[in-house]
Amino acid sequence: MIRLQFSLELAYTVLTPSADFFFDFHPAYTPQQTVMLENLTVSQAAATWSLQQDASGQRSMRLQAQSGPLKVNYQATVEIAHYSDDPAQIPEVPVYQLPLEALHYIYPSRYCQSDRLAAYAFALFGHLPQGYSRARAVCDWVQQHVQFRSNSSSGTTSAIDTLVERVGVCRDFAHLMIAMCRAINLPARFVTGTDYGADPALGPPDFHAYVEVYLGGRWYMFDPSGTAIPMGMMRLATGRDAADAAFATIFGGVQSEPPRIEVLAEQNGHQWQLPVHTNQGLSTAVV
Amino acid sequence: MIRLQFSLELAYTVLTPSADFFFDFHPAYTPQQTVMLENLTVSQAAATWSLQQDASGQRSMRLQAQSGPLKVNYQATVEIAHYSDDPAQIPEVPVYQLPLEALHYIYPSRYCQSDRLAAYAFALFGHLPQGYSRARAVCDWVQQHVQFRSNSSSGTTSAIDTLVERVGVCRDFAHLMIAMCRAINLPARFVTGTDYGADPALGPPDFHAYVEVYLGGRWYMFDPSGTAIPMGMMRLATGRDAADAAFATIFGGVQSEPPRIEVLAEQNGHQWQLPVHTNQGLSTAVV
Amino acid sequence: MIRLQFSLELAYTVLTPSADFFFDFHPAYTPQQTVMLENLTVSQAAATWSLQQDASGQRSMRLQAQSGPLKVNYQATVEIAHYSDDPAQIPEVPVYQLPLEALHYIYPSRYCQSDRLAAYAFALFGHLPQGYSRARAVCDWVQQHVQFRSNSSSGTTSAIDTLVERVGVCRDFAHLMIAMCRAINLPARFVTGTDYGADPALGPPDFHAYVEVYLGGRWYMFDPSGTAIPMGMMRLATGRDAADAAFATIFGGVQSEPPRIEVLAEQNGHQWQLPVHTNQGLSTAVV
Amino acid sequence: MIRLQFSLELAYTVLTPSADFFFDFHPAYTPQQTVMLENLTVSQAAATWSLQQDASGQRSMRLQAQSGPLKVNYQATVEIAHYSDDPAQIPEVPVYQLPLEALHYIYPSRYCQSDRLAAYAFALFGHLPQGYSRARAVCDWVQQHVQFRSNSSSGTTSAIDTLVERVGVCRDFAHLMIAMCRAINLPARFVTGTDYGADPALGPPDFHAYVEVYLGGRWYMFDPSGTAIPMGMMRLATGRDAADAAFATIFGGVQSEPPRIEVLAEQNGHQWQLPVHTNQGLSTAVV
Repeated sequence: MIRLQFSLELAYTVLTPSADFFFDFHPAYTPQQTVMLENLTVSQAAATWSLQQDASGQRSMRLQAQSGPLKVNYQATVEIAHYSDDPAQIPEVPVYQLPLEALHYIYPSRYCQSDRLAAYAFALFGHLPQGYSRARAVCDWVQQHVQFRSNSSSGTTSAIDTLVERVGVCRDFAHLMIAMCRAINLPARFVTGTDYGADPALGPPDFHAYVEVYLGGRWYMFDPSGTAIPMGMMRLATGRDAADAAFATIFGGVQSEPPRIEVLAEQNGHQWQLPVHTNQGLSTAVV
Repeated sequence: MIRLQFSLELAYTVLTPSADFFFDFHPAYTPQQTVMLENLTVSQAAATWSLQQDASGQRSMRLQAQSGPLKVNYQATVEIAHYSDDPAQIPEVPVYQLPLEALHYIYPSRYCQSDRLAAYAFALFGHLPQGYSRARAVCDWVQQHVQFRSNSSSGTTSAIDTLVERVGVCRDFAHLMIAMCRAINLPARFVTGTDYGADPALGPPDFHAYVEVYLGGRWYMFDPSGTAIPMGMMRLATGRDAADAAFATIFGGVQSEPPRIEVLAEQNGHQWQLPVHTNQGLSTAVV
Repeated sequence: MIRLQFSLELAYTVLTPSADFFFDFHPAYTPQQTVMLENLTVSQAAATWSLQQDASGQRSMRLQAQSGPLKVNYQATVEIAHYSDDPAQIPEVPVYQLPLEALHYIYPSRYCQSDRLAAYAFALFGHLPQGYSRARAVCDWVQQHVQFRSNSSSGTTSAIDTLVERVGVCRDFAHLMIAMCRAINLPARFVTGTDYGADPALGPPDFHAYVEVYLGGRWYMFDPSGTAIPMGMMRLATGRDAADAAFATIFGGVQSEPPRIEVLAEQNGHQWQLPVHTNQGLSTAVV
Repeated sequence: MIRLQFSLELAYTVLTPSADFFFDFHPAYTPQQTVMLENLTVSQAAATWSLQQDASGQRSMRLQAQSGPLKVNYQATVEIAHYSDDPAQIPEVPVYQLPLEALHYIYPSRYCQSDRLAAYAFALFGHLPQGYSRARAVCDWVQQHVQFRSNSSSGTTSAIDTLVERVGVCRDFAHLMIAMCRAINLPARFVTGTDYGADPALGPPDFHAYVEVYLGGRWYMFDPSGTAIPMGMMRLATGRDAADAAFATIFGGVQSEPPRIEVLAEQNGHQWQLPVHTNQGLSTAVV
């Protein structure tokens, strides 16, 4: 089991009389992810906010702030119990048998235009044996063919752009993997989470975007960017692509500072383990 | 109240050993739309199928057919009780107060790239008084600036394409209106329905794509293509755009004939009225 | 040496009071391509036309026709003397030494967005030994990865579209090969010509689009669509892509019938040979 | 007559063993633009370079530099004699009568996809009286509908992008105006020049991109960005769009510093005048 200490500081200056913020930075409540303790502070006395949980356990906060500086501080202790399985034992689910919720993730979305990639994806992956290994092959292909470069993409960059230009950040790797999976009829979705930054070579902890593919009746995690340790990734929001699952969406004139994030993994010898790379299929979601 | 007799005949030839069909041609069950009688016939004895209803009342049928000819016949009697209101009394809902379900329809989707249209849409509609009339202005603008031409677009045509090329079919009009609405923070969604073809000038009854905009706590209907009588439109499926709400999605090698559709409105003087054009705001959905 | 009998019949109906036609169907005058006899008939007595030759020998005809039917008939006898060389002996020209005319063909154009393909093209072809064989590798790659399908593309389809969707006609194969070549700094251009339809499996004679790459101080011909016998291709117009080199560009309201084309190769045992497939590098242009 | 003192300093660090530079920073030799004195210094003793002039008087410099720092300094005195005419007297040239050279500029190019804009452009400008005033209307429309914002676009941004997103720099304003002109059959081309920065509100002298439209047998200058005084613009390179007419194209690993540019207008009361805004049609090119 993984136990993470998550700490976040967001700093803004509201330039208009007021501004609305929609935040998805609360760790989701799921059967596999338990939020033990959490603490939220908002610096503006006059700000109003509320927290709302949807059927999947995702928690969305909306906050209305007034002109001037705004700080939002959040800390939580989160425990993640991964389901893991032997990749060789994880089958694909035939389209005809997909549950309705998973079926939606087979269709194209804003940044994952799978409808245009059928021939491309079938040529690459159509002949491979079905199962977890095929999703893994898509993940590896994306990682091998796209170069990670900070600030190489923008908010409108899509999977097609990344496929053509072969460069991006974690969001772009995720979009391309999702688009390719859907093009071969594998339901795939976008997760906004945090990256446990244990490995200095991979950089400090940060928000992260990764992929889940529906296989064997569960959603299995993949990190096509190869910049994180999947076992240390914590779920914030889930959606079809980044259009659904931004950690912050802002309406109004607002100046933002880079978020400050800390993620520490606890270790006590028996109960809490440090996240490590594994060849097992890892999952934290059934729906 | 409107009472429609709906009749549909679909004819395919399955060329592969089997094929999977996902159909959304059943009229949705909603508080405003009641399906009185319905009858479904599938020509293949060996075909298996099931019908599933989601939380919104949309009914999805999945069918697995074998090689060879396949006919699907469906008839239903459907009653629609429209909610109508004075446009001057229908306000916009501030983003901060949008229910979570409506909030999703403010984000960009596959064919409605509202994230790229903010400047364009604000220049056209940002200065207009808020309310139903603003959504109507978007609808009128789309109708006036896009030319209807059969077969002028394809399955990958998006709102941006239509904005640039100024030509399309009902699906394209809907996508452009939705994208423009979202760009000015109006939740908007795509409805696949049928078009009551009473007016010979507008063509025979057919599948139709139209738009719903979230205003005053309800979803109001708009027909940016101007080719239908909104009061006669019947809801089949609802989604972010055509990626979500096709009447048929097919996996396998299949040859299709054009669907044969009939929609007849009953009229009995007092209870059942013929659909007519109206200046009122019309709605058949709260969620 | 190749000797072709070329015959063309174009039939239009002008629907507006008048219409302007720009035709590039005259075989170009070049040192390697000699037009022996030619005959042109225009059916409208009132039509005016003129023929103009540019520095490269390309001949453009402009014609102004009046309302009503218009037929244009053209016949020519054309001799083509190919320069051929051993592929192993044909080097690339370093960018620094490219003549100014060739340099233009290294830049992106409307349908060949090589500026976006640098990473993609270098990953595929950057490590290959320089020379004719590298251009051949691009040609083969395009032929292997794109499927030929009639009517699968439109006048706005670009190399990026073809790269993503993997389907097209000869124009699309040419655009993709050109874009990939330019992305690795090989000057490449678009030729509109005719296809000697000797092989019934490849279809009847037709207009054709093919590619020339600047290597070893000459332009070498490539047919990435693989649908023609390059030795039998006759040059009409040359440009950066299809935007430059349409066989007909029309201004006005005009209804067109499919052009009727005949290309016959003469054979007399010694002087005139039938076009055949060859492994040699073939060229008919120095500039 | 305008007399400009032009001074340019370019500073690079070549990171690879060598790098090739193609520069178009020499003022073009044209009948209306005379280069009186010029001086070029290249800091690397081992660098080789040459200067080549094409038929239009454009001068391209190619330079091969070695690893390490590279500075290129250039100064010139340039006299520009503008042809000016009353806009009301400047007609459009019917397509049928366009000279072959101008005809090329009616076709779409990499960043000016006029082939997709016919309906859009005809709706806006199709009904206007033909002549200089119509090109002026396109220029004004672009200026009014696009917002100038530094760093808002990239090297792959096209006219379609700018039309949709309504923001850009001078290059983007030029591309959109060119695309719109071509869509209504007005030949239009891209000029890379310098901006006489007399007006502090418009910023210091800089490289600039502007437009020429073929009217009345000449190329007339337009500045759709509205950031320069057209009379003070000096021609460096001319092409279909930015793909053709970059001031520098670099092959190799090179780090660049921002160019340092000075443009001073001489004034001596009678012969040399300061550039001023004018309502006349201004031209410096017949071909």
